[in-house]
Amino acid sequence: MYDFGLLSPVWAGTRAAELTSDTAFAQAMLDVEVAWCTAQVKFGTAPESITAAVAAAGDIDDYDLVAIANQTPNGANALIPLLAAMRDKVAATNADAAAYVHRGATSQDIIDTALMLLTARVGEHALGHLKTSVRQLTDLAAAHANTVMIGRSLDQHAQPISFGYRVSQWIEALGSAGQHFETTLGNLPLQWGGAVGTSTWWVDYFRAEQPENDPMSLVNRQRELLAEELGLFPASVWHANRIPVTTVAQAAFQMVAAAAKLANDVLTAVQAEHAELAEPTAPGRGGSSAMPHKNNPVLSIRLKSAAQVAAGDLNTLHTGVIANTAERADGGWHTEWAALRDLLRTTGAVTEILAELTGGLEVFPEAMRRNLDIHGNYLMLGRITQWLGPVIEAHGGMSEGTGKQFVQTTCQQAIANGDDLAETLVANLPEGLVSVDAVNKVLDPSGYMGGAATIVAEVNSRYRKWSI
Amino acid sequence: MYDFGLLSPVWAGTRAAELTSDTAFAQAMLDVEVAWCTAQVKFGTAPESITAAVAAAGDIDDYDLVAIANQTPNGANALIPLLAAMRDKVAATNADAAAYVHRGATSQDIIDTALMLLTARVGEHALGHLKTSVRQLTDLAAAHANTVMIGRSLDQHAQPISFGYRVSQWIEALGSAGQHFETTLGNLPLQWGGAVGTSTWWVDYFRAEQPENDPMSLVNRQRELLAEELGLFPASVWHANRIPVTTVAQAAFQMVAAAAKLANDVLTAVQAEHAELAEPTAPGRGGSSAMPHKNNPVLSIRLKSAAQVAAGDLNTLHTGVIANTAERADGGWHTEWAALRDLLRTTGAVTEILAELTGGLEVFPEAMRRNLDIHGNYLMLGRITQWLGPVIEAHGGMSEGTGKQFVQTTCQQAIANGDDLAETLVANLPEGLVSVDAVNKVLDPSGYMGGAATIVAEVNSRYRKWSI
Amino acid sequence: MYDFGLLSPVWAGTRAAELTSDTAFAQAMLDVEVAWCTAQVKFGTAPESITAAVAAAGDIDDYDLVAIANQTPNGANALIPLLAAMRDKVAATNADAAAYVHRGATSQDIIDTALMLLTARVGEHALGHLKTSVRQLTDLAAAHANTVMIGRSLDQHAQPISFGYRVSQWIEALGSAGQHFETTLGNLPLQWGGAVGTSTWWVDYFRAEQPENDPMSLVNRQRELLAEELGLFPASVWHANRIPVTTVAQAAFQMVAAAAKLANDVLTAVQAEHAELAEPTAPGRGGSSAMPHKNNPVLSIRLKSAAQVAAGDLNTLHTGVIANTAERADGGWHTEWAALRDLLRTTGAVTEILAELTGGLEVFPEAMRRNLDIHGNYLMLGRITQWLGPVIEAHGGMSEGTGKQFVQTTCQQAIANGDDLAETLVANLPEGLVSVDAVNKVLDPSGYMGGAATIVAEVNSRYRKWSI
Amino acid sequence: MYDFGLLSPVWAGTRAAELTSDTAFAQAMLDVEVAWCTAQVKFGTAPESITAAVAAAGDIDDYDLVAIANQTPNGANALIPLLAAMRDKVAATNADAAAYVHRGATSQDIIDTALMLLTARVGEHALGHLKTSVRQLTDLAAAHANTVMIGRSLDQHAQPISFGYRVSQWIEALGSAGQHFETTLGNLPLQWGGAVGTSTWWVDYFRAEQPENDPMSLVNRQRELLAEELGLFPASVWHANRIPVTTVAQAAFQMVAAAAKLANDVLTAVQAEHAELAEPTAPGRGGSSAMPHKNNPVLSIRLKSAAQVAAGDLNTLHTGVIANTAERADGGWHTEWAALRDLLRTTGAVTEILAELTGGLEVFPEAMRRNLDIHGNYLMLGRITQWLGPVIEAHGGMSEGTGKQFVQTTCQQAIANGDDLAETLVANLPEGLVSVDAVNKVLDPSGYMGGAATIVAEVNSRYRKWSI
Repeated sequence: MYDFGLLSPVWAGTRAAELTSDTAFAQAMLDVEVAWCTAQVKFGTAPESITAAVAAAGDIDDYDLVAIANQTPNGANALIPLLAAMRDKVAATNADAAAYVHRGATSQDIIDTALMLLTARVGEHALGHLKTSVRQLTDLAAAHANTVMIGRSLDQHAQPISFGYRVSQWIEALGSAGQHFETTLGNLPLQWGGAVGTSTWWVDYFRAEQPENDPMSLVNRQRELLAEELGLFPASVWHANRIPVTTVAQAAFQMVAAAAKLANDVLTAVQAEHAELAEPTAPGRGGSSAMPHKNNPVLSIRLKSAAQVAAGDLNTLHTGVIANTAERADGGWHTEWAALRDLLRTTGAVTEILAELTGGLEVFPEAMRRNLDIHGNYLMLGRITQWLGPVIEAHGGMSEGTGKQFVQTTCQQAIANGDDLAETLVANLPEGLVSVDAVNKVLDPSGYMGGAATIVAEVNSRYRKWSI
Repeated sequence: MYDFGLLSPVWAGTRAAELTSDTAFAQAMLDVEVAWCTAQVKFGTAPESITAAVAAAGDIDDYDLVAIANQTPNGANALIPLLAAMRDKVAATNADAAAYVHRGATSQDIIDTALMLLTARVGEHALGHLKTSVRQLTDLAAAHANTVMIGRSLDQHAQPISFGYRVSQWIEALGSAGQHFETTLGNLPLQWGGAVGTSTWWVDYFRAEQPENDPMSLVNRQRELLAEELGLFPASVWHANRIPVTTVAQAAFQMVAAAAKLANDVLTAVQAEHAELAEPTAPGRGGSSAMPHKNNPVLSIRLKSAAQVAAGDLNTLHTGVIANTAERADGGWHTEWAALRDLLRTTGAVTEILAELTGGLEVFPEAMRRNLDIHGNYLMLGRITQWLGPVIEAHGGMSEGTGKQFVQTTCQQAIANGDDLAETLVANLPEGLVSVDAVNKVLDPSGYMGGAATIVAEVNSRYRKWSI
Repeated sequence: MYDFGLLSPVWAGTRAAELTSDTAFAQAMLDVEVAWCTAQVKFGTAPESITAAVAAAGDIDDYDLVAIANQTPNGANALIPLLAAMRDKVAATNADAAAYVHRGATSQDIIDTALMLLTARVGEHALGHLKTSVRQLTDLAAAHANTVMIGRSLDQHAQPISFGYRVSQWIEALGSAGQHFETTLGNLPLQWGGAVGTSTWWVDYFRAEQPENDPMSLVNRQRELLAEELGLFPASVWHANRIPVTTVAQAAFQMVAAAAKLANDVLTAVQAEHAELAEPTAPGRGGSSAMPHKNNPVLSIRLKSAAQVAAGDLNTLHTGVIANTAERADGGWHTEWAALRDLLRTTGAVTEILAELTGGLEVFPEAMRRNLDIHGNYLMLGRITQWLGPVIEAHGGMSEGTGKQFVQTTCQQAIANGDDLAETLVANLPEGLVSVDAVNKVLDPSGYMGGAATIVAEVNSRYRKWSI
Repeated sequence: MYDFGLLSPVWAGTRAAELTSDTAFAQAMLDVEVAWCTAQVKFGTAPESITAAVAAAGDIDDYDLVAIANQTPNGANALIPLLAAMRDKVAATNADAAAYVHRGATSQDIIDTALMLLTARVGEHALGHLKTSVRQLTDLAAAHANTVMIGRSLDQHAQPISFGYRVSQWIEALGSAGQHFETTLGNLPLQWGGAVGTSTWWVDYFRAEQPENDPMSLVNRQRELLAEELGLFPASVWHANRIPVTTVAQAAFQMVAAAAKLANDVLTAVQAEHAELAEPTAPGRGGSSAMPHKNNPVLSIRLKSAAQVAAGDLNTLHTGVIANTAERADGGWHTEWAALRDLLRTTGAVTEILAELTGGLEVFPEAMRRNLDIHGNYLMLGRITQWLGPVIEAHGGMSEGTGKQFVQTTCQQAIANGDDLAETLVANLPEGLVSVDAVNKVLDPSGYMGGAATIVAEVNSRYRKWSI
């Protein structure tokens, strides 16, 4: 019952969907509770004897998640019923142990920390696939550093570029977003503060038990043990400070946005009229029995849709964040959860799709060249003018601009008449000033890519090593 | 595996969640395919003999939805694998029948129509609960048409109103949104057009089979049978026209937005410092074992969060809609699905919560009166000035504004000194001009509610009958 | 100083921008205040003598809007300083008249009503241009009802359609959105209720002045006069009910969304590789001196960007609406204003652009045909199979599906070999079963457009008359 | 004409509005063009003689911005008409100089760079005001580190905190967002790449002029000079990589979101029923002549609305970013501009408001204490049980939980009966086990703030020094 992804081709069937399922989230909540018991044992505030009973209650497959979901509205969170069930399980094995479960903690500690754990898990998965994608793209960029194609501005033919240059811009976006996300992943914060964030239970406890020590120092040291146990950063409490969750979500979205740009470009290039690229094929994918000529670019379609969905989820999260109040919000916090999870799920799925797409993208240099030639020498007018104008002016002692004017007029007429451009120009200029060969060299678009290959090399040097 | 609502207290455990589950959506797709076979049989383009085999394949519980979800990315939709499985099932019973399943249709026909069917089902559910809520609120408004409380503008004390008047504004918003949604529900369109919306398969079929008739007339008549079968409006094809889906989503959101306003007001009023309202209690709900004084307003919190989530879903849907292209979009369409479903799910859940909240809201008129009195007579200065200023001016032959000025100065001084306002005023005015009783009557906030009770009656007369 | 549209090519220089400028909004506020004085005079609650002084203060060009903007933050609205300035102006002419200005009203009455007035003005402008666009599109659809081109699903070649059919879907979306917007425009509500919406000032006034009458009846009658004066609907107070503003904004957005779909299609079709359409040219527009081959589709680019901007504005408005509280919100209401204005401005600009684009769109049927032919007979395999399969089966007494299988295999082989499809099929079938001519007729894409022309006629019949 | 902020109390009249006006943006575009000429002169690719003429054309007050706005739609950007006007001005002084203006650049270079310059300018302004706010808040937190008040979760009374602790969470959010924004400001990238980002013009130029050198090295060195001139980071071209603009916008939003949390808390606390805080007053601000008891919290209302507006702008920017295509987008890029500017404007205004609010916030500790006491000893039940339960169990050799149970039952009964809690407990326990004084000490909420004061000190140590 409920949701498997039938309405979400973006993530249906992905590993990211599993890593971010309700089951995975509930497991993460159990993991936090178990780790907290472990931390108490390590710090000496709980007896070693509780370990087995607590560990035995730590597998989410032993819980009835539908029942827990049905009780979720009662307290407006899922931890309350899950914790009750967990305590029962622990107590069934070891009656004394149950008192240590969740001791001094609050729902928000567990839910926020579990979401960070989920982020770490799906984040590592996503980062791995992103790096794979970047690595594959650096290969592609290097291979096509000099493969000429038309560059487009405002979706229109502008000047020649190399395909490798276009790929380098995909890499730059994906790589910088990936590095930013990696930094964020390395600083995912533990949430731990008790009812209103001030650790009252534990401060009272340590005041009574270790009156000679500063209680908050003990609280903090115990918290560090928990953070270490979970692989999170032992941050100050952030119940009422939602910047950490905003940072994670924004960073994830950047990767999705970078992937969407790539997908948009692929979707244009695979159109039959362009035919510059093709998505990798796989059995059962993208075809249509009714229309055998179709190879639907489903990977790019999924990436494009993913970005629309992710932008919406980030927006929802932001809406929740700005409604934050007091020590725990009355609705805004609740809005964050699914928005963050859905965004992470989409992000993970995007990286899986991207790794597949970039691993098998087919490139058709001939088609690139054919499309480039649609406007023929019109494309080169700027260049020929830049080069030939000053030559003419220098020769004839003409004022600046006159040569430029002459070149433009002559060229446009030649193109309009269908005459050979180089021959027409040479014929209209003083003999010996320029040769047909020299003009033709300037008219060769493959020589008119500026620093494309250099930019490819620079970008690869920035991201290649990181991606391996 | 996957999602049960653990991260969505808004809808976890609701009936709306079931009505909008992936299972429910898949069932709706089967229902459309079955209805299409029925329509063919009724129109005489398929033999009666297929009916049993097709019907026998119409129960979603006989399908492996996880497997279908896993195949969803292949064609970027779930209908393709579901249809394959359905045809297998039909063929297993009646080999000839399978050819009639989905005949001349395309994925988009089924998916769009199934989403409309889902909308109809959860929409009817939502509308029922909304009407219940409105009915309950009309009772509340009538009962408190004259229960005085402070009205707030910019969240600050402004002038007295009655609680019934505030409720009347909830009703007006919920009722007008509900009536608009009801109209929308009554016009949910069938989607039916074949590969590119032009019904080519059937036009060719009818040209061959019934050359004497206009083929599109036959297509349209057959489509009307299908629409009737499904209880939908036999609209023109809208593959490439996403206004219908936008209309449905916008209408649903209006109900959620109206409910959020109510929830915001309840959340303020249940604060301990206000204590004007309390949410209905239920076993296990809203309490905290650690903090027995707590009765968390979880219904209102869920409504508030729901609106944030729904606004996000509508935004996502709009983002998909504006990316629409050609005869079927490359990503934008795919974005609509989950956004619409999630929005409908939230809408349905909101109405369930609302029915419960409005059915048991506790009202504390004494607290309302106590809060009203915080600013004491300061609230009434505007009124006393409006009334007494002209009286003084008329008596003394003073110029306009002079009396007003006198009243304001005298009152503010009296309040500042803690003097009785009525007595001070009378003492400072010509004897016999006004009586202490007359002044005190004007100072009574319960007489200063303008047309509050009339507005309650008007609003109830607009929505009461509709809600029953 | 401030904003002229340099960062908003969407609306810079449009008439809609003027109709929605801060100046226009401030004028609308003055118009409401003036109309309210007129209504009082007509109802007999103010003397005829105030008319001239009030009217003389009604021109926004006499006010210092920068000074008023600078005072806007003080009360978080612009009406407060504008009203002070207006009263001063009125009083300078007629000292007694100032007291009637704004009598019994509140800031929200003026601001909400002025926004509705602004909506009416720019809305009428937008609707006019939208109708022009629809009319022009109906001409285009009729002219190209049978102009064959490739239909696309998921951005890929699918089946033939006519260009007129594609246009018909633009019309359906624009026309239905326009009709919905027209209905909304016809019901724009007056906002009038005083401080907390209950008309206290006027109820007290009428109680004192006309004790024999029901005061709210008088209030309502006086309000009807004001509504009539302003051309608005005399609605119940909606201070705390934001559904009316939501309805207007959603309706406006629908037109923008419909225009975006058209723009997306144009942007694909004007690419050099497609070359099926061209935007109308105009002096100075869309060209590039550096790149003379460019004719940038700036109209469509502006429409596409407009939809992204408008979706954002609508989302912002929704975010404000759901934060609504009590009798006047503490921030949510303030969020609505600019969001609504910006959305209306964009909507108006969109219709201006659209009228220009649809009035001069160039269509290249040869290019449409050339692109259609890229996949050659592959496109027709579904059709030939649908037709020939049963013929073969009937002839040979073969089981269902066998003929279909034979046709598919034979065709795919023929296409792969570059053989003539019709001749190959005929050669492989029993002599006389079908002729080469018959096969070729089936292979003609211009005969394979299903009900395209009928749909064009239907859609035109729905919207043509309305648009004139 | 056009916009002054009448519909935007959030930013009307602020310095941030001036720093982000269309005029300021156009000035920034001129600044980029002038700096580019300077860089050429410094690099030796342009003669020193152009300097004066170029500089003389660098003041935006000499341009007709309305005319430029009107031409903006022609090329869908404002740089094209502005550049034409600038070249005319330069040529009027020095005919040869005009050729160096914009040499080898493209519109996107200027627009993107000008937006980064605008970001730097308003960003520095915003950061300054944010630091002032943080500094003021650290004073407030320190002063109230032990001022007891009720902490709220889900908007309900939970446990005591200190007001300083709540402030510390405002600081943590604002400070961490501010530090992140500061980092972003320090890395604002120059955009420079020519038509399609590959610096073709300059590569050709250097190939011809300095054939012995690697042309891209020269290009990069010349670009570094420009970056230095503008105070920007000499980044690689990012025409097609919109991560940099996303990063800036997301960072700005984080500050706004942090401010919204503070505002939400103030809005609750200034309600008459709470009365724990008051906004600073200023002449003309927040009052209502009709309602003298009102002190509208206009600063917080503006902050709250600002966050809703900013979330919308960020969402719009994201929508544009994901629609990015090829070497320059066909609409998505155009959507970014106003969204970024509006977001920066709002951010700057927010910091101005925040500095004013945090500089004069009035705190009423007695009201905090009064509100805390509403639930009386109910608040302390958790604490008394935590302390007394084990004492009883230890004394009586009772099993774990029994003591806890006894304490809870006894306390709830005492509270219900209105009995003194300490005396009742002592009377019901073995003589001498605990004293009334000891119990009363535990019942003192001012001792039950856990690590509140320590957290205040930690947070101040993190942000105090930074803020000065």
